[in-house]
Amino acid sequence: MWVIAPISAIASILTAGLLYGYVNKQDPGTKRMRGIADAIREGANAFLKREYTVLAYFVAIVSVALAVFLGNPLIAPVYIFGSICSGFAGFFGMHVALKANVRTANASREGLNRAFLIAFRGGAVMGLSVVGMGLLGISIIYALTGNPELILGYSFGASAMALFAKAGGGIYTKTADVAADLVGKVEIGIPEDDPRNPAVIADNVGDNVGDVAGMGADLFDSYVASIVAAMVLGAELGEASPVGLEHIPLIFAGLGIIASLMGVAVVRVGKKGNPGKALNFGTYFTCIVFAVLTLLITYILNINIGIWIATNIGLLSGVIIGITTDYFTSINRPPAMKTAESSQTGAAINVITGFSYGLISLFPPLLGIGLASASAYFISEYFSIPGLYGISMAAIGMLSIVGMIVSGDAYGPVSDNAKGIAEQAGFSEKTIEVTDMLDAAGNTSKAITKGFAIGAAGLTVISLLAAFKTLTKTAGFDLMNPRVLTGMLVGIAVPPLFSAMVMLAVSKNAFKMIEEVRRQFREIPGLREGKEGVKPDYARCVDMATTGALKDLLPASVVSIIITLTVGFIGGIDALGGYLGGSIMSGLIFALLMANAGGLWDNAKKYIEAGAFGGKGSEAHKAAVIGDTVGDPFKDTAGPSLNTLITVMSLVASLFAGLIAKYNLMAFLGL
Amino acid sequence: MWVIAPISAIASILTAGLLYGYVNKQDPGTKRMRGIADAIREGANAFLKREYTVLAYFVAIVSVALAVFLGNPLIAPVYIFGSICSGFAGFFGMHVALKANVRTANASREGLNRAFLIAFRGGAVMGLSVVGMGLLGISIIYALTGNPELILGYSFGASAMALFAKAGGGIYTKTADVAADLVGKVEIGIPEDDPRNPAVIADNVGDNVGDVAGMGADLFDSYVASIVAAMVLGAELGEASPVGLEHIPLIFAGLGIIASLMGVAVVRVGKKGNPGKALNFGTYFTCIVFAVLTLLITYILNINIGIWIATNIGLLSGVIIGITTDYFTSINRPPAMKTAESSQTGAAINVITGFSYGLISLFPPLLGIGLASASAYFISEYFSIPGLYGISMAAIGMLSIVGMIVSGDAYGPVSDNAKGIAEQAGFSEKTIEVTDMLDAAGNTSKAITKGFAIGAAGLTVISLLAAFKTLTKTAGFDLMNPRVLTGMLVGIAVPPLFSAMVMLAVSKNAFKMIEEVRRQFREIPGLREGKEGVKPDYARCVDMATTGALKDLLPASVVSIIITLTVGFIGGIDALGGYLGGSIMSGLIFALLMANAGGLWDNAKKYIEAGAFGGKGSEAHKAAVIGDTVGDPFKDTAGPSLNTLITVMSLVASLFAGLIAKYNLMAFLGL
Repeated sequence: MWVIAPISAIASILTAGLLYGYVNKQDPGTKRMRGIADAIREGANAFLKREYTVLAYFVAIVSVALAVFLGNPLIAPVYIFGSICSGFAGFFGMHVALKANVRTANASREGLNRAFLIAFRGGAVMGLSVVGMGLLGISIIYALTGNPELILGYSFGASAMALFAKAGGGIYTKTADVAADLVGKVEIGIPEDDPRNPAVIADNVGDNVGDVAGMGADLFDSYVASIVAAMVLGAELGEASPVGLEHIPLIFAGLGIIASLMGVAVVRVGKKGNPGKALNFGTYFTCIVFAVLTLLITYILNINIGIWIATNIGLLSGVIIGITTDYFTSINRPPAMKTAESSQTGAAINVITGFSYGLISLFPPLLGIGLASASAYFISEYFSIPGLYGISMAAIGMLSIVGMIVSGDAYGPVSDNAKGIAEQAGFSEKTIEVTDMLDAAGNTSKAITKGFAIGAAGLTVISLLAAFKTLTKTAGFDLMNPRVLTGMLVGIAVPPLFSAMVMLAVSKNAFKMIEEVRRQFREIPGLREGKEGVKPDYARCVDMATTGALKDLLPASVVSIIITLTVGFIGGIDALGGYLGGSIMSGLIFALLMANAGGLWDNAKKYIEAGAFGGKGSEAHKAAVIGDTVGDPFKDTAGPSLNTLITVMSLVASLFAGLIAKYNLMAFLGL
Repeated sequence: MWVIAPISAIASILTAGLLYGYVNKQDPGTKRMRGIADAIREGANAFLKREYTVLAYFVAIVSVALAVFLGNPLIAPVYIFGSICSGFAGFFGMHVALKANVRTANASREGLNRAFLIAFRGGAVMGLSVVGMGLLGISIIYALTGNPELILGYSFGASAMALFAKAGGGIYTKTADVAADLVGKVEIGIPEDDPRNPAVIADNVGDNVGDVAGMGADLFDSYVASIVAAMVLGAELGEASPVGLEHIPLIFAGLGIIASLMGVAVVRVGKKGNPGKALNFGTYFTCIVFAVLTLLITYILNINIGIWIATNIGLLSGVIIGITTDYFTSINRPPAMKTAESSQTGAAINVITGFSYGLISLFPPLLGIGLASASAYFISEYFSIPGLYGISMAAIGMLSIVGMIVSGDAYGPVSDNAKGIAEQAGFSEKTIEVTDMLDAAGNTSKAITKGFAIGAAGLTVISLLAAFKTLTKTAGFDLMNPRVLTGMLVGIAVPPLFSAMVMLAVSKNAFKMIEEVRRQFREIPGLREGKEGVKPDYARCVDMATTGALKDLLPASVVSIIITLTVGFIGGIDALGGYLGGSIMSGLIFALLMANAGGLWDNAKKYIEAGAFGGKGSEAHKAAVIGDTVGDPFKDTAGPSLNTLITVMSLVASLFAGLIAKYNLMAFLGL
């Protein structure tokens, strides 16, 4: 029965192909627009090419290490396969996004309707590729080997790739964004997307390499990890159902793809419609279809109803976490409004206020993840299903609709780029307004899906920890065991360390680029005044962002992997379990804090720009721009990398568990 | 033998009295100085009086609740006794600090030597009162009842008091500081301590009610909690030593006081000496004396050497954590210098950079706490002492020298105030320079002692968790137990929630006060120009800060206690254990992050003020002032309250453990 997984995966990839055709046949617009789009594409491709070259070396080294140390000759190939699938999904998605942006901009001249559809379908190619490639890869390995543990290697390949893609893309995008923002708006008084701004093309490129390619790799990774964790637990915890517990994750994931395909199909916006509502409707519709489909299959295959309930608890919590995230970041809710208000007394109070609301925003999702895992556990146990397996199915539930989630998420940077292109191409006010509406809808849906993604990552890493426990046959990780406790204290320090390293990379590179932008305005005569025919040196900014990001791509990620192995080989399995537990806790804290505070500052600024507290150009606005700039690397570089980071750490731990159990310093010392 | 504890406690209190006499007999200076000092004293006393009135109601309500719910008729009286001792130590310390500040300012006219001694001895009164009152209170209860568990009630009284004192004092001090800073330096272009600034007196008052009274209550609380945790564990884990395990904490704490008395006696600075070095020398000297004294008593009483080693591991880790903290916050180290450099590209990059270094700074102390607890555990076990008891003795080791630590810490606000008074009294450049040197030394020693205090709090709450485990006779807190896990996810959300509530209180109240300061500059003719005889309305700012802080004093603290009890009564002992574990982890994260990032921003600003990157008044300086202002509530309001918060949560959990074990929803549902 689990053949439903590869079938729906292939259907998903085929649909992505069809949507690609739809986007491709649209009119790419005027020569000027195509010129801008080409510049963006060139920059993005150049970056990705250089990034993938660096990563190829890394993958080669790691696969040799895996082959040498882990004994199993199949680990290295599946690891490489995972990296390639993830990289391909990211690349393909970005390729389409780069076509969709200019076509969306062009269609905006005729109104909202078709422009929205192009942007959304451009994003959907990414969404459907991610789930299609992910599930197909898992199915192939499982069909060939029948061994869920081997899929851990595949998942590790995808995760390591995602980590670098997020780190590299995240550093790139915010370097350019911060530089374009700060120099443009605050110092020189021209908008971010103004063609006179030398950083503008780099900024547009960044949206694609960071928000599209990086985000795709990120969710690819969570999606695969949640499935593999549930399969490993299902295989170890035994047969409590007529269909093997290890097959149900595949079946449900397959149904999730079908639900997402239906969701993508129904998303549409009328002439005067609201794009934000259309996206949210698509998400809710997908959830309902998924719940119904899984209920049907549960009856047909006589699967234990406890599994269905646990899965849908996950789905429901995802929606609830998304809605609370929305409350804390939305432009017309008290947190953003009060932060905007506080900007009147300067940037410092704006930062303190936004940061504080970010801290408060942790409570609902953490409580939600806690309640979701506890209720999934106890309900499963009530229906005689192992509780830990129930938690892993809740993670599957949350991630089942990832096809739809990513579609909505990738819509964001496509419409953001479309807006940029429209502005640079000098379109009419009315057209810009249309692209503005599209862009604003992207920001709203982004907040919800980010909350969703973090909640899902939380449940996924908890089930990865459960898989680690099951694989190592450990009784548990007792906080009062000094090994676990010490591991935990080190573990909680790693996500902040990683965040800091990527943020410092952003601030270092932005510093350099700001100097460069200032130099161009100083040395290129007529640039500031926008004299006819005078153009900034875009390419130099693109090149600076690329070089900077590539240099800082590896260190943070490699350090995290090394610390993980060090803790394991010194402290043994108990210490490693505590370490993973600690990193999950602090990873969740900072991922939520940074995503929410960042989104909040952004919307506080937009609230002022909409006319409150003096509007654009006021002192309050300047203060809010500073808050927004602080939030940029929070929400788009450090924050979203963290769930990938903890997934990578968990997978490294699981893969090396056997070796660590045998060889570790504590055991050697007889402690 | 534990009679050594009350004897040295009484010696400590008597010495505090002598030092008080020394400070009191110094010349309080000119009429103008006394006028300023009187205004500060009036403001501080008015605040404390109103704060203690609010707290008296709270203490009354809680003691009734304790009497009704906990059955034991002695709990309520010891709880009240703890509150009173803590409140008294805070009040007495502040009373002396308010005398010392003006006398230090006056002595500065004759040079560094005596001025330093007055400031330090003024601080030492606080330090010696804290340890004297703390240990005497414990000794009295133990002598009367012989029951270490009852001392938990005393400790809870002290902690609850400390939490409110920190929250109330912290909100007050930063409300005034932020307002004085922002309006004065950035907008109007006059220094913080300028007599024209309407918020200046409120700012001086804040130093005393926040940094002196609040900090004293805070360390009183950690000190008492570490001793009581070790005693409870010692009593439960049995007799492994000729002297009962429950007595050793008292004996070692007594020796710690003797070491601190000797340390206080040797601190002195020559004519051209360095006050920062003198303070640090005092700390190191105290450490060595403590190590030697405890080694002697270990041989004399034939105490297991494992206990001595564990204790001194704690002490050593305290020093190491202090030194790494110093690296991350010190003015002439890369983190502060790079943050200062980044200020050239604006406030946002300054904030991102400082925050990032703050995140990195978590790693060494967390690793240090982890290694300290693990090595204390394993060494104790090696010498046949229960490992958890070893951890609790490491906490005692760290906190043994608290008398000296608080003396150096309280020196900070005294010299800060002295500087303020000297500036307002219009002293010569040379005198101001002397007070500047005194103040700078305070900032250096503050960074080290803050790291020390947080490390100690970390070990203390771990041993409180161990005490909770032992008292509830739980096997352990397994991360994979869904009750523990869910408790933990909620637990990690509480310290951020608490931090946010107090910081929002600061930003709300500062907002109001800034408006008020602006109003005074607008409406009082001649104020900005410093016209002879024109004075701002200081009292109104003092009153605003008082009212604001008192209104926001309770909510954050009460919410934390309510969540703790809710988790317990719903999830039972396991959930509560996980909850405490989680709150310890995130409490440590945010306490360290906020203290270090705050200190770093402060010194980055000072680095620029010393002439780098354009010096005072440059764009870089303006950016650095914003970072510093963000750091103000981080390092002086939210950060330092967190160790008290987690202590309070742990004590509430321990006190209600019996009741919760019997009555909780999960047990009621049969789960």
